[in-house]
Amino acid sequence: MAIASSSLDQNQWLWFNQFSNNLFFLTSFLSFTSFKVHLDILVKISSSDRPCGQPLNQARTALPSSFTIKTSKSPFKRLVSKGDRTRKSCVVLATAAPVSKEVTANTRSGFDESRSDSSKPQRVMVIGGDGYCGWATALHLSNKGYEVAIVDSLVRRLFDHQLGLDSLTPISSIHNRLRCWKAITGKTIELYIGDICDFEFLSETFNSFEPDAVVHFGEQRSAPYSMIDRSRAVFTQKNNVIGTLNVLFAIKEFREECHLVKLGTMGEYGTPNIDIEEGYITISHNGRTDTLPYPKQASSFYHLSKVHDSNNIAFTCKAWGIRATDLNQGVVYGVKTDETSMHEQLCNRLDYDGVFGTALNRFCVQAAVGHPLTVYGKGGQTRGYLDIRDTVQCVELAIANPAKPGEFRVFNQFTEQFSVNELAALVTKAGKKLGLDVQTISVPNPRVEAEEHYYNAKHTKLIELGLKPHLLSDSLLDSLLNFAIEFKDRVDTKQIMPSVSWKKIGVKPQTVPAN
Amino acid sequence: MAIASSSLDQNQWLWFNQFSNNLFFLTSFLSFTSFKVHLDILVKISSSDRPCGQPLNQARTALPSSFTIKTSKSPFKRLVSKGDRTRKSCVVLATAAPVSKEVTANTRSGFDESRSDSSKPQRVMVIGGDGYCGWATALHLSNKGYEVAIVDSLVRRLFDHQLGLDSLTPISSIHNRLRCWKAITGKTIELYIGDICDFEFLSETFNSFEPDAVVHFGEQRSAPYSMIDRSRAVFTQKNNVIGTLNVLFAIKEFREECHLVKLGTMGEYGTPNIDIEEGYITISHNGRTDTLPYPKQASSFYHLSKVHDSNNIAFTCKAWGIRATDLNQGVVYGVKTDETSMHEQLCNRLDYDGVFGTALNRFCVQAAVGHPLTVYGKGGQTRGYLDIRDTVQCVELAIANPAKPGEFRVFNQFTEQFSVNELAALVTKAGKKLGLDVQTISVPNPRVEAEEHYYNAKHTKLIELGLKPHLLSDSLLDSLLNFAIEFKDRVDTKQIMPSVSWKKIGVKPQTVPAN
Repeated sequence: MAIASSSLDQNQWLWFNQFSNNLFFLTSFLSFTSFKVHLDILVKISSSDRPCGQPLNQARTALPSSFTIKTSKSPFKRLVSKGDRTRKSCVVLATAAPVSKEVTANTRSGFDESRSDSSKPQRVMVIGGDGYCGWATALHLSNKGYEVAIVDSLVRRLFDHQLGLDSLTPISSIHNRLRCWKAITGKTIELYIGDICDFEFLSETFNSFEPDAVVHFGEQRSAPYSMIDRSRAVFTQKNNVIGTLNVLFAIKEFREECHLVKLGTMGEYGTPNIDIEEGYITISHNGRTDTLPYPKQASSFYHLSKVHDSNNIAFTCKAWGIRATDLNQGVVYGVKTDETSMHEQLCNRLDYDGVFGTALNRFCVQAAVGHPLTVYGKGGQTRGYLDIRDTVQCVELAIANPAKPGEFRVFNQFTEQFSVNELAALVTKAGKKLGLDVQTISVPNPRVEAEEHYYNAKHTKLIELGLKPHLLSDSLLDSLLNFAIEFKDRVDTKQIMPSVSWKKIGVKPQTVPAN
Repeated sequence: MAIASSSLDQNQWLWFNQFSNNLFFLTSFLSFTSFKVHLDILVKISSSDRPCGQPLNQARTALPSSFTIKTSKSPFKRLVSKGDRTRKSCVVLATAAPVSKEVTANTRSGFDESRSDSSKPQRVMVIGGDGYCGWATALHLSNKGYEVAIVDSLVRRLFDHQLGLDSLTPISSIHNRLRCWKAITGKTIELYIGDICDFEFLSETFNSFEPDAVVHFGEQRSAPYSMIDRSRAVFTQKNNVIGTLNVLFAIKEFREECHLVKLGTMGEYGTPNIDIEEGYITISHNGRTDTLPYPKQASSFYHLSKVHDSNNIAFTCKAWGIRATDLNQGVVYGVKTDETSMHEQLCNRLDYDGVFGTALNRFCVQAAVGHPLTVYGKGGQTRGYLDIRDTVQCVELAIANPAKPGEFRVFNQFTEQFSVNELAALVTKAGKKLGLDVQTISVPNPRVEAEEHYYNAKHTKLIELGLKPHLLSDSLLDSLLNFAIEFKDRVDTKQIMPSVSWKKIGVKPQTVPAN
């Protein structure tokens, strides 16, 4: 949509915010209605009308305090039905004044100079680009010169509303995020709001954006969420499996050369008593040998949904020649990337609650507010971890070095292994340096998992492609802890303890009572 | 429902048939509406009002030509909302005059005398009990003294209507089938018509029937069907995965001791270059050893749905202590069992078409009508096969010897391996003996599969439990061929050739044009 006036006064800004909010709720609740929203707009951002609260320290220095941008009088330059220009489309397109030819040429050219090879993929669709990893990745790819579109139903924000949760960090609406990104960098990220389980919507995004690569983060990504009740278990598997099937069909039908970069999880493997390889294992048995998919032992309905996806994708690579990379990601920590640090409106979400929070991030928030670190059970659970700056780096490496047609490539995407007890010790030590008194308690493990086990997972393929890991260091922990301290007033301590039990899940729908 | 008159005259019979048909269509199309239909009724069956066409030879001798049964005047003794007697139920119950106490005691006692051990499971729910394997199994278990309920949405019959297909054999409505069974044996099989993806319906069946074991055939079971178009691929995975999830939740919530006997498929394993074990394989790797789930390489959306199910079930065994047996079944052939042979109205379906037909059954029908046997590609595709009489035997063995709480037990359920070329040669030889001129042609393989490969799958666990295999013999092939010849006038030769391509599947919904 276009806002078109020489600058936005306070009333216009309020009206615009209200409109954005209404649009958000409308699209969240009406998943069968799809909107494509062009955000080819540069908005005025000054210290007086910044919608999000505290400025980030980094942002203060990186960003001028105001922008004044050429816009026109009307908030909607055109509101047209796309049906009159595309085949069988029923998408309402709230479009902006066309981007100038100069800008179009610039963004379409994609890559930065060091990447001018025209055979390289240039147009990347990031499904789930409003989420924790997706947002950071979309900005990173845009910054690197790729032309990026975000496809997202925004349902992750709805989950927070429904469960009474919130990100530690205040996050802007996706609309404001993208306006801000355009204002700072001049780069446009297209936005398609809708549900990829709605194939009509997904088809429209493919035919409109014509991606060379699809990065698929667009799944319900929390193991505890999938274990709340029957309906959420079913939702998680249906949403994740059908969404991914639709993406595979869209690639086959509309963009057969498009490379699928799919976010899987290290949790697909479970904790076998042998080394974990990257996707495949060569087995000699009764005098014969074959290389087979590595056996999977997922232990939540969420993790299982990723196993189902991996199996479905592997089949379509073989049957249809789809090119796919499955990134079996470890637990991600951190919040800042080069791009999200550019301005407070670009700030990423940080989850610390018992449903969406993950070990290291949650420990830092607990330390910041003086809550004991909650180790589940014995704390010997060992997993692969990585910095969110490495997530975005890995995804870009996968895109820049695509799988071959028919290839189902699996990378284990993490940089270091830690046990929960090791993480607690690291946070305790870092907290002491900052004068925090950090305690640790063991809480009954809400999950079903081994609490002491062998764990040795290979992770060399992304290194071979050029990954330069950001290993967990004292300084990173200091920074994360300081970040948590900065926002500690926003912490709702009632959300910290685990609230979902793997064994107690039942068929009755669970709601969160107001306390 | 009860039909209650001293005998049914022709008008009553017509009215009743019309009612049954209306009920069938109503329930097929309104999957959100569930009916529990009690068939505690003995109907008059005489040669003049037999609804199905040609009598089976065996049935003629086994069955008296008419029954006269005590019934009352009204077709519905009571039509009550069950809401007034069960918790939160909204199921409309068309119920019969109560079964007499004597009969109730008799059926509730379950097992025959040789099985009077009260610790053995007695009440078995057969989900998908109107289908090819399910129907034969339900009758077999009922005959063995188990108290049986069939749960089925009847959607398999709808698939035939939609695709313009039909069973080689004329099959009676499920209502007539069960009336006939009651008439012949005095045994009642309860019937719940509804969709297990509707958890409210499934809950009602569990709370009403209180099964000790659930045999779950209730899935879309055709690989070609799952490869027709996107919507059928999605339907197959959603229907199968969510249905099974619901069954797992129902067991956890309502019948935690209930043993799940789930029909999987040998197709889950694909065709690895090493021996196929039964569910698990012990792997030594880099000096360490673990026993892990056998790697799966399914190659259709249907086969993949079974892999997803297996993974989901394995998890719930570990997390919730579910007791489950996964029967990885081979390709089933044959049509008659001891029970389905008792009367023409009990006759099982036999599919020969390109969507639901499977190799050996289809070859026999092709030979019977003088159509060349259609070998896909090179014909070296080797799979496990079994007689349908062994299917019912295996399921009963699994039920009689249940898995332990928390155990996820996998049996490979087949008795012999054949390549497609070997089957064609066997049918050619058997056909010659009957004076048939049987030709074989190679047609382009519509599937994506290896056409020459190593195949050696273990199948000892059911033998250890007592399975006495019916191996494929000349006499069985003679019998199958004669059966096909008996019904050859019903063959629609347009349905024989493969119509679904693994590579050509697209997003456009496919319909079958009238020829």
